[in-house]
Amino acid sequence: MAAMKSERALVEEWRDVLALHRRTTCELDRALHAYGIGASDFDVLDVLAEEAPADGGSAYRVQELADRVHLSQSALSRLVARLEKSGLVVRGMCGEDRRGVRVALTDAGRARYAEALPRQRAVLKRMLGEDGADSRDG
Amino acid sequence: MAAMKSERALVEEWRDVLALHRRTTCELDRALHAYGIGASDFDVLDVLAEEAPADGGSAYRVQELADRVHLSQSALSRLVARLEKSGLVVRGMCGEDRRGVRVALTDAGRARYAEALPRQRAVLKRMLGEDGADSRDG
Repeated sequence: MAAMKSERALVEEWRDVLALHRRTTCELDRALHAYGIGASDFDVLDVLAEEAPADGGSAYRVQELADRVHLSQSALSRLVARLEKSGLVVRGMCGEDRRGVRVALTDAGRARYAEALPRQRAVLKRMLGEDGADSRDG
Repeated sequence: MAAMKSERALVEEWRDVLALHRRTTCELDRALHAYGIGASDFDVLDVLAEEAPADGGSAYRVQELADRVHLSQSALSRLVARLEKSGLVVRGMCGEDRRGVRVALTDAGRARYAEALPRQRAVLKRMLGEDGADSRDG
């Protein structure tokens, strides 16, 4: 009986992860639509704006960025190509670095990120905040 | 300071959800490849095999199934079309029911589900089990 319950609990937990992932992504896409970006686009801008690459450089390698935002490298490459077309990021090869393409924010990308940030954080707070011990709203 | 920390905690929590979702989906896809299905395919077979529709019928409406497996209706329709082509499910219109297409497992679908089940549960246990209070393995 205990083993059965445990298996059911695992299945329920996985469904909860799927539900939270889908609902939050859906709400983020909706909220960020006004800024011309989606949930994953914002995640990429978020990393580029907030965090320094592991090697301390000024731009991210696509592989490192993929690890940070939890996308496959092929999915991230398509996303970055789209952001570049919108003028929000630039891509460039580093001459000495054979490990490939690097990505950085443009000024327009940084401005768009700053505009969208409060909306994105508001959605996270609404979707994830109620589980947290920090919430004190009655 | 407290507000800053809370925002950072939300962002970290969202990244954790993304990471858990992506890693588990990736492991499930890999484990289920031998059975010719992916993570979402299994979720659909799982609902069809294990749970009765809300109206007590013998087949699921696509909309109800979409709610259960947390996919958009369009994504689910493509998935179901693929499963039907593989002979694992059948689709049919219910004459009296104007609310659309219904989906049910075939015998082959039930057999494939039974074969894949232990592998899928083993991945869930490996990826999600260590957080659970039920785990007693040292």
